[in-house]
Amino acid sequence: MISAPRIGFIGLGLMGKPIAGHLVRAGYRVTVHNRSRAAVDELIAQGGRAADNPKGVAAESDVVITMLPDSPDVEAVAFGEQGILAAARPGMIHVDMSTIAPAAARRIAEAESRAGVENLDAPVSGGDVGAKNATLTIMVGGKPDVFQKCLPIFETLGKKITLIGDHGAGQIAKACNQIMVAAQMVAMGELLVFAQKAGADPREVVEAIKAGAAQCWTLDTKPQRLFAGNRAPGFKSSMMLKDLNIIVDSAKVYGIPLPMTAVNAQLFAALVAAGQGDLDNSAVIGVIEELARVKLSETRD
Amino acid sequence: MISAPRIGFIGLGLMGKPIAGHLVRAGYRVTVHNRSRAAVDELIAQGGRAADNPKGVAAESDVVITMLPDSPDVEAVAFGEQGILAAARPGMIHVDMSTIAPAAARRIAEAESRAGVENLDAPVSGGDVGAKNATLTIMVGGKPDVFQKCLPIFETLGKKITLIGDHGAGQIAKACNQIMVAAQMVAMGELLVFAQKAGADPREVVEAIKAGAAQCWTLDTKPQRLFAGNRAPGFKSSMMLKDLNIIVDSAKVYGIPLPMTAVNAQLFAALVAAGQGDLDNSAVIGVIEELARVKLSETRD
Repeated sequence: MISAPRIGFIGLGLMGKPIAGHLVRAGYRVTVHNRSRAAVDELIAQGGRAADNPKGVAAESDVVITMLPDSPDVEAVAFGEQGILAAARPGMIHVDMSTIAPAAARRIAEAESRAGVENLDAPVSGGDVGAKNATLTIMVGGKPDVFQKCLPIFETLGKKITLIGDHGAGQIAKACNQIMVAAQMVAMGELLVFAQKAGADPREVVEAIKAGAAQCWTLDTKPQRLFAGNRAPGFKSSMMLKDLNIIVDSAKVYGIPLPMTAVNAQLFAALVAAGQGDLDNSAVIGVIEELARVKLSETRD
Repeated sequence: MISAPRIGFIGLGLMGKPIAGHLVRAGYRVTVHNRSRAAVDELIAQGGRAADNPKGVAAESDVVITMLPDSPDVEAVAFGEQGILAAARPGMIHVDMSTIAPAAARRIAEAESRAGVENLDAPVSGGDVGAKNATLTIMVGGKPDVFQKCLPIFETLGKKITLIGDHGAGQIAKACNQIMVAAQMVAMGELLVFAQKAGADPREVVEAIKAGAAQCWTLDTKPQRLFAGNRAPGFKSSMMLKDLNIIVDSAKVYGIPLPMTAVNAQLFAALVAAGQGDLDNSAVIGVIEELARVKLSETRD
């Protein structure tokens, strides 16, 4: 690749659409595909091109990026009859930015390697805001030389880009990220309900504790949204549940008991079972509110 | 109190000793008492005075500060035969900086009020480092005018001082703080063990995730200590267990199920049962290591 690589982009959802837009604006030739057409038309209006299926995208691209909900989606797009590998050429690179199981990422990389296709797993953290502002954290697994080739692309999308290790290592880092984020979301829910029901103003409590040992991005950004009655995503609870299920399933495979994360997965499962999977992950407080029969002051959802 | 109040200080432990030292250096007349004599001698060498018991301290002081392990200790020091109330005068102020149950703080404030003694609950966050550097977070419950009288004292000790609400509200805020801190400590333990056993370098994982949505003071400060094999306190696990037991017990009284914090209390109980209660609260990773039969690289405790 002497000149800028031609980029393919498959999966124009909440995360994928703004990411693909940054690549178009950065001057890359970007060919996109998405199951529903509206997002494709938006990208074309911005200067992108369209292909009818993943094979068509891959035929026009040196680097094919996927941003899809889960492992089966990535496997279908990679290995399907009209999939990426149907247009495989040696030296082609598949960068999967979806969050999937580390073991699935390794399996996909191995299968693609046999077809001469290089693979990077490159899941992200930062949510739709990070995607829109190009401030994503990008956690990468794969070969160093392939990482170096793709680094200019990543730098168009994020501010913290790390090669963690070999195939799957990006997904392991993402899993670790979600263990911490889920814990903070549930802790925030438990402490706000505790303050409310024990008789202290949750706003004063948050102001007091957010500068000390409890300091975290979650307490810096989410309570004000909850106090304003805003539980819209952000990052959907159903996606957090998917990520936690990946973590708990992977932990079983590796023989790692995760007592707290297992409970957190159950709490997000309760939220999704209550039909609230489309709310922000901070809305997990709703499960604690339900258990304690109390509502956070001024919640209006 | 026209002139600077005379201060009494009872409980010269890991937290109390440096706090009392700051007050002496700030120019207050400070009379101290402690069960063991060594810490008292240190304070006298710095310019403090000593009294034989809490009553003796109170007789010499306008504001009596206590920093003790738990509710029974505070009640003994307040209500004992040689206790603070034995020297009660109208207008005297008792500031309890210990971490105890919110309900116990309210009981103590009510009993002291009947003796004409004002009370503030003023637990702190920030650990021994915050005590030494006078950067504590101080969460206060009580009357606004009493808070205002004591504010200059608090400003000698901490950088974030908040009147949360009425008696007990400081303790509620501290409980909320510990819900979040315990969650972060356990999450850090689970994610480091997950990374290690799933096959990614825990150092690279921490570097990648600490700048994103998982960002917290815990990830900023504790992993480097764990990687260096340092599990010394800091803040002892036995004290975290005490705080979590206060939270879970109080939550029962108020009818607040706390599914995640209850699990975290069990994990700290396991650490203490294994004889490791004197280690830092970040050492709770040891319970996950034990369950997963793996040790974090380069741990040498």
